[in-house]
Amino acid sequence: MLISELARRADLPVATVKYYLREGLVGPGVATSPTRAQYDDTHLRRLRLVRALAEVGGLRLATISEVLAAVDDDDRPTLELLGAVHEPLAPATPDPSPGWLDAVDRLLQALGWPVHPMASHRRVLAHALETCAGLGHELDDATLRAYAAAAMAVAEVDVEGVPVADRELAIETVVVGTVLREPVLLALRRLAQEAASGRRFGAAGAGC
Amino acid sequence: MLISELARRADLPVATVKYYLREGLVGPGVATSPTRAQYDDTHLRRLRLVRALAEVGGLRLATISEVLAAVDDDDRPTLELLGAVHEPLAPATPDPSPGWLDAVDRLLQALGWPVHPMASHRRVLAHALETCAGLGHELDDATLRAYAAAAMAVAEVDVEGVPVADRELAIETVVVGTVLREPVLLALRRLAQEAASGRRFGAAGAGC
Repeated sequence: MLISELARRADLPVATVKYYLREGLVGPGVATSPTRAQYDDTHLRRLRLVRALAEVGGLRLATISEVLAAVDDDDRPTLELLGAVHEPLAPATPDPSPGWLDAVDRLLQALGWPVHPMASHRRVLAHALETCAGLGHELDDATLRAYAAAAMAVAEVDVEGVPVADRELAIETVVVGTVLREPVLLALRRLAQEAASGRRFGAAGAGC
Repeated sequence: MLISELARRADLPVATVKYYLREGLVGPGVATSPTRAQYDDTHLRRLRLVRALAEVGGLRLATISEVLAAVDDDDRPTLELLGAVHEPLAPATPDPSPGWLDAVDRLLQALGWPVHPMASHRRVLAHALETCAGLGHELDDATLRAYAAAAMAVAEVDVEGVPVADRELAIETVVVGTVLREPVLLALRRLAQEAASGRRFGAAGAGC
């Protein structure tokens, strides 16, 4: 296919496709004239993956390059491949106090979750807990345990759904599943709060 | 206390406190001279609640006024009081397709969650599911059920923790608990994904 069709099928402007080609995020097509090249489904797949990493994951091009290098390196173990995209998905977070980082480490240890000490999400959790406590609404241990159990229940479903036989699709699934399922979980939690409020405080069926 | 101390203890600029007083969000103090008034702990509590609604909940002043009216109306049942603050906490969301709203309604019915048909979070969920499907990563029924079960588990903990004997504190707890615990849940989910990935794809202890 020509670049115009490639762009159309990837749902991207031609200018963006040309930019990704220049930056080497997508490999070159087969030149058929000095100004024309042919592309195939491997280009389309790669383009869709770059788009998911950029638009859904919000990753910078330098990070996308690193992720793609991991995808193309068949010697990289699956866990390392997934970590290469999962770690940079962590949202930017102000530095938490060291005391809260310690509290997170103790929690992870108590849960038996082996998490690499540099994992950015450890900092994100410490900051989130510190913010709650700063407003006088610290989560007690039982609440935190209930949250952790619920988080693991959905994480297991997420991880089971990663199609490891296809490395490109695996990475795309991790990005899309990690980022785009978050609003699903949050909306379900709020609807569940309304249902649970109805059960505790009002007639069943009254809703919020 | 004077307005300067009131502002200091509420951790707000004096100008903001004056603005809230002018808008009637906080009742007037007892005038001790034409330019001075005394405030007490009821003013401080109300100011803290307004601050939580504005800063944590992101609510507009008109909505805050409605919530405060519900707090002050002792005849309002608890469920209605909580709904008055929970419903406007829904994030702004583009209109989902009617088909996705129907899918959400079928899900809520299957789950036995009685949710008011106007609940904004129903639209938020429909939009979130539509976005996943649009990127070719639709959630299957088993995944959605697992997410719903996890959401209800944390919602029950949230709702149990609402101190209904104190209406102002109840509303503050709903706002802070609903909004500020979201980053906690999301960070725990990502750490759990790393732990679950380690179990599925790598040596225990290797983490992400």
